Amino acid sequence: MISSDSLTLFSDSQPTATDTMHATLITIGDELLIGQVIDTNSAFIAQRLNEIGFAVRRRIAVGDIKEEILTSLKEASENSEVILVTGGLGPTRDDITKQTICEFFGSNLVMDQEILHMVKALFEKLKRPMIDVNRKQAEVPHNCTPLKNFFGTAPGMWFEKEGKVFAFMPGVPFEMKPMLTEQVIPKLKTKFSTPFILHRTIHTQGLGESFLAEKIKDIEDLFPEGFKLAYLPNYSIVRLRITGSGDDPEKLRTVAEELETAIRERIGEFIFGYDDTSLEKEIGKLLREKKLTMAAAESITGGLIAHKITSVAGASDYFKGSIVSYVNEAKEHLLGVKESTLQQHGAVSEETVRQMVSGAITAFKVDYALAVSGIAGPAGGTEDKPVGTVWIAVGNSSEIVAKKFQFTRSREIIMEYTAITALALLWRFIAGRKL
Amino acid sequence: MISSDSLTLFSDSQPTATDTMHATLITIGDELLIGQVIDTNSAFIAQRLNEIGFAVRRRIAVGDIKEEILTSLKEASENSEVILVTGGLGPTRDDITKQTICEFFGSNLVMDQEILHMVKALFEKLKRPMIDVNRKQAEVPHNCTPLKNFFGTAPGMWFEKEGKVFAFMPGVPFEMKPMLTEQVIPKLKTKFSTPFILHRTIHTQGLGESFLAEKIKDIEDLFPEGFKLAYLPNYSIVRLRITGSGDDPEKLRTVAEELETAIRERIGEFIFGYDDTSLEKEIGKLLREKKLTMAAAESITGGLIAHKITSVAGASDYFKGSIVSYVNEAKEHLLGVKESTLQQHGAVSEETVRQMVSGAITAFKVDYALAVSGIAGPAGGTEDKPVGTVWIAVGNSSEIVAKKFQFTRSREIIMEYTAITALALLWRFIAGRKL
Repeated sequence: MISSDSLTLFSDSQPTATDTMHATLITIGDELLIGQVIDTNSAFIAQRLNEIGFAVRRRIAVGDIKEEILTSLKEASENSEVILVTGGLGPTRDDITKQTICEFFGSNLVMDQEILHMVKALFEKLKRPMIDVNRKQAEVPHNCTPLKNFFGTAPGMWFEKEGKVFAFMPGVPFEMKPMLTEQVIPKLKTKFSTPFILHRTIHTQGLGESFLAEKIKDIEDLFPEGFKLAYLPNYSIVRLRITGSGDDPEKLRTVAEELETAIRERIGEFIFGYDDTSLEKEIGKLLREKKLTMAAAESITGGLIAHKITSVAGASDYFKGSIVSYVNEAKEHLLGVKESTLQQHGAVSEETVRQMVSGAITAFKVDYALAVSGIAGPAGGTEDKPVGTVWIAVGNSSEIVAKKFQFTRSREIIMEYTAITALALLWRFIAGRKL
Repeated sequence: MISSDSLTLFSDSQPTATDTMHATLITIGDELLIGQVIDTNSAFIAQRLNEIGFAVRRRIAVGDIKEEILTSLKEASENSEVILVTGGLGPTRDDITKQTICEFFGSNLVMDQEILHMVKALFEKLKRPMIDVNRKQAEVPHNCTPLKNFFGTAPGMWFEKEGKVFAFMPGVPFEMKPMLTEQVIPKLKTKFSTPFILHRTIHTQGLGESFLAEKIKDIEDLFPEGFKLAYLPNYSIVRLRITGSGDDPEKLRTVAEELETAIRERIGEFIFGYDDTSLEKEIGKLLREKKLTMAAAESITGGLIAHKITSVAGASDYFKGSIVSYVNEAKEHLLGVKESTLQQHGAVSEETVRQMVSGAITAFKVDYALAVSGIAGPAGGTEDKPVGTVWIAVGNSSEIVAKKFQFTRSREIIMEYTAITALALLWRFIAGRKL
């Protein structure tokens, strides 16, 4: 139990409550409205804005339609200090958006020589001819600050109007992200006196969100002014994010550390990492530290686990590979699972996954391996082993631990839970934690 | 060249132009505004609405804030006939949204016995105690039509007000999707006389969007009233979607077939499938037809290809597995790639991927295999083989074809292009198409 004594620091360190600044995010583009493209930009932008103390008040998606764009810009400026707009700047659609922008800000288009030079250089590098529409992309409203696009042809635009900031960026994530992080965010920090925002994220696996909340409710109740706790669940991973807002970074850090310590003392057994990490990254860290290696043997997940592991740059330092043994013969021939085992116990059994682990260790000559076998559905379930029945084993040459799970809902969801649970078990095994 | 003579049918079959009906999509929930969750619901809803003739005019995301919810409902009803709202209905947040809904529609909450019964049954099935907040979820505004939720505890709500339709659904995709497709869409079709909408999607791979557009520009120019063509690119796959809108389904079908035929005659070599399909599904269809099997040998893609293939239900009928040989020793020991080959030519070479294909065919005893090897980055590139250099091979026991590619941008993008290109090449090989 946290006593108010141990948190005396809090009363000294009330961060100054600062009025939250708001942003509205606007995306321009029919492709979003028809559902052809998923909006991933807004989540990214929201996270970057949160880091500097802005709260996103609203997100609006409109089509490539002048009236819609004008309406959304006007509405956004009525309730936000910052309006960030993505999309609508491609060579074929440049016309509508830029014209609309000029109308909104009372601008004329002028050719920006520096931008033109960049666009020319990009086409030379790609060994492609530059056509007229691309040339026109270097025209910008005379009263904006152009934002350079180092990864595409459309420059961004920064406007200030009546104390508000409007930034227009390309919709292509690969082009937008650097422009946002390297130009827009720094300019926003300069323009507005943003409070200091501190995030500390605690990654947990193994206990559901509501049970975690129950365990740390009293700690959460003692969070001081300026601090809050967010629960961010994703399948069986729950991130707990402590956020502190104020003017004194040192005080914020001290308080955040105390809160983190209190939480760790309460639910430490479920914590596997902090801040920017993932199970696959933590496994990588551990293996690098110990200079050890791993492999996988996958049936039900069909390569998903290997894909997650190899999505981490440098994984080949510790990950040797995976055998996706999608049928019984492959389990026998490539992993050495005994035919008699498959016949007596079936592919989805403790005996099979144990042998798959041993087989992977031998095949790849690694220190650790994980194995999964199960029924993803929708077909294939029996009364004995319904859809969602999954066996997971992790181990090394001395010890193998196997566990059975019952996942539900859909093929995709069952595969995702299996992959995450397998990685979590392996991490615990390597880290010497209770499984 | 399409002549206007061959399209005489078009002049007879002008579909009646119908005023497009509009929908606004609203998502409620802080988790979207802070960027914790990606909005996938809106794209799904938009596609379903498009299929019955509704165009999404705008999408708005607001937080769990009464004023924001009220404002967005009001604004939406001013420019759309249909307003679909997701989110905000979970047991901990039910209060704000439901209260706000009651305020907007002038409702009292009443306990719906049928819904209560369903919620109770759900908890019994999950063997969990039902607590008060869950009980309250069965309370619905007296003037709505409740929408049953067969996959969760929060019922949806359907309101009609001043000729507009408002439907509120849970935010969890797994709960929203069935409610939308099985209840909301049918009710919308009944309520509004929607035009008949026909979509015909042509899937292509191997030619970029602008080049495709150039090749079929004249056909596109001859599209009759009521018909349009959308280009929907995703990495190196470009879907061409023909959409026809009118009152006579037979006439629409006939015209759509003519347009499809014209397009196929022009760019048929790039087409691999129609409507709801994917490269992995088409590969599955071909292999089932021929009663043949396949496997994969993956280096750079680290399991991504196997994951794509196994995401298709029933893949184990034709897919035996994959060897993710992430390091050279694994390529040697598990796929039989010669040590001398690796030393002389390197892992990223024609010789290596050819041997990987042979190795996979032998290891899994299959008819076809594909192999990929490359440099995903960010590290690992050399002047000779920069980041993004990828070799792909596909083949059977008689013939193997290998090709080299240069992909760019980021690790994730390079891996995705490699996977798609490998599947496309394999499909062409199995289908007997030019590679």
